[in-house]
Amino acid sequence: MSDVEASLTLGAIFYDGFELLDVYGPLEMFACVGPQLSVVSVAERAGPVSPLKGPATLAEYGFDDCPDLDLILLPGGLGSRVEVENEKLLDFLRERAPAARITMSVCTGSALLAKAGLLDGLRATSNKLFFDFAVQQSDRVEWVEAARWVDAGALVTSSGVSAGMDMALAVIERLFSKELAERIAELTEYERHTDASRDPFVRCLNAALPKG
Amino acid sequence: MSDVEASLTLGAIFYDGFELLDVYGPLEMFACVGPQLSVVSVAERAGPVSPLKGPATLAEYGFDDCPDLDLILLPGGLGSRVEVENEKLLDFLRERAPAARITMSVCTGSALLAKAGLLDGLRATSNKLFFDFAVQQSDRVEWVEAARWVDAGALVTSSGVSAGMDMALAVIERLFSKELAERIAELTEYERHTDASRDPFVRCLNAALPKG
Repeated sequence: MSDVEASLTLGAIFYDGFELLDVYGPLEMFACVGPQLSVVSVAERAGPVSPLKGPATLAEYGFDDCPDLDLILLPGGLGSRVEVENEKLLDFLRERAPAARITMSVCTGSALLAKAGLLDGLRATSNKLFFDFAVQQSDRVEWVEAARWVDAGALVTSSGVSAGMDMALAVIERLFSKELAERIAELTEYERHTDASRDPFVRCLNAALPKG
Repeated sequence: MSDVEASLTLGAIFYDGFELLDVYGPLEMFACVGPQLSVVSVAERAGPVSPLKGPATLAEYGFDDCPDLDLILLPGGLGSRVEVENEKLLDFLRERAPAARITMSVCTGSALLAKAGLLDGLRATSNKLFFDFAVQQSDRVEWVEAARWVDAGALVTSSGVSAGMDMALAVIERLFSKELAERIAELTEYERHTDASRDPFVRCLNAALPKG
């Protein structure tokens, strides 16, 4: 089997108001995997997609011409509060996630997966400071408050922002090897968290949500 | 003084082959500061700039129309091996860094600052796995092997990739407050390193450099 045939394609999903580190933290780790993994960027329409603050990312593919994806990475961010009502995004996730080997979310990305029904019956987590936003999207999910990330097999959800890097390394360890995950942590000088259940930020639960 | 007058402008410098997390880790932290800080993206020419793997970033400004910068963020990456010979980039840094309040580099970004002569007589650090690449650019720098980051006042250099996030939070603490830096670490669920001299990756010194 050639390198090209053996390669996995990871699709990073962008939408306006995405959180920078939610997507670029995991992408840094996946980019270090080597020729066994390629990365494509996807949005509703190809072209510039903007975070709340910071430079725009150029999405290479729209939902209509996106290639087959082995891995899906879905970030969170304030834009997710708009996207939970975007049926085009939800339908894209409903179509593509079942065909992918692993679908990952970071932060409030799990609110989108929950709204799409993809977490029904599964354990999942989300951003700690906005946890109830995810919970409000579905009562068919077993929401786990204290978790850096939750590995439910084909669906892996992480806690807020930085937690996505630990989830990415755990997925790299599952797909490739522990040695590769440790090597990537060294290359990126990242002290990874290897215990999915250790969550130093559960103390902040819903701290950023408006009352009432 | 209005918010606009009080605002600092941070310029993130992009070049082909930049390392994703070098720039997006610190930008995540700075983006959380609020209206007191705005972010602009700059490259030799405005338009798409590509990392080794992953989606292109759209640089808003070229070197010729870049606004005044209070803060400069210079990432590293394999592209820095080409850029140390790019006199347009080096001249831009020579012109802009002395006018900025703080110039920051991540990873091999310090090799570019060293080559531009901006670190002459100062303490500085760089990526651990490629440390000698930075050292080779200048013997007028006091290179510090064991450091997560080195704060030399107007020039702040960090170690590899992830270290940029700790440097960014330390600079936010210096410019604004400890409370804001801690609040941003909570928002991003990031367990920050607050000791600049603690360097768990000094054990990897030059591990990635070819021998001979």
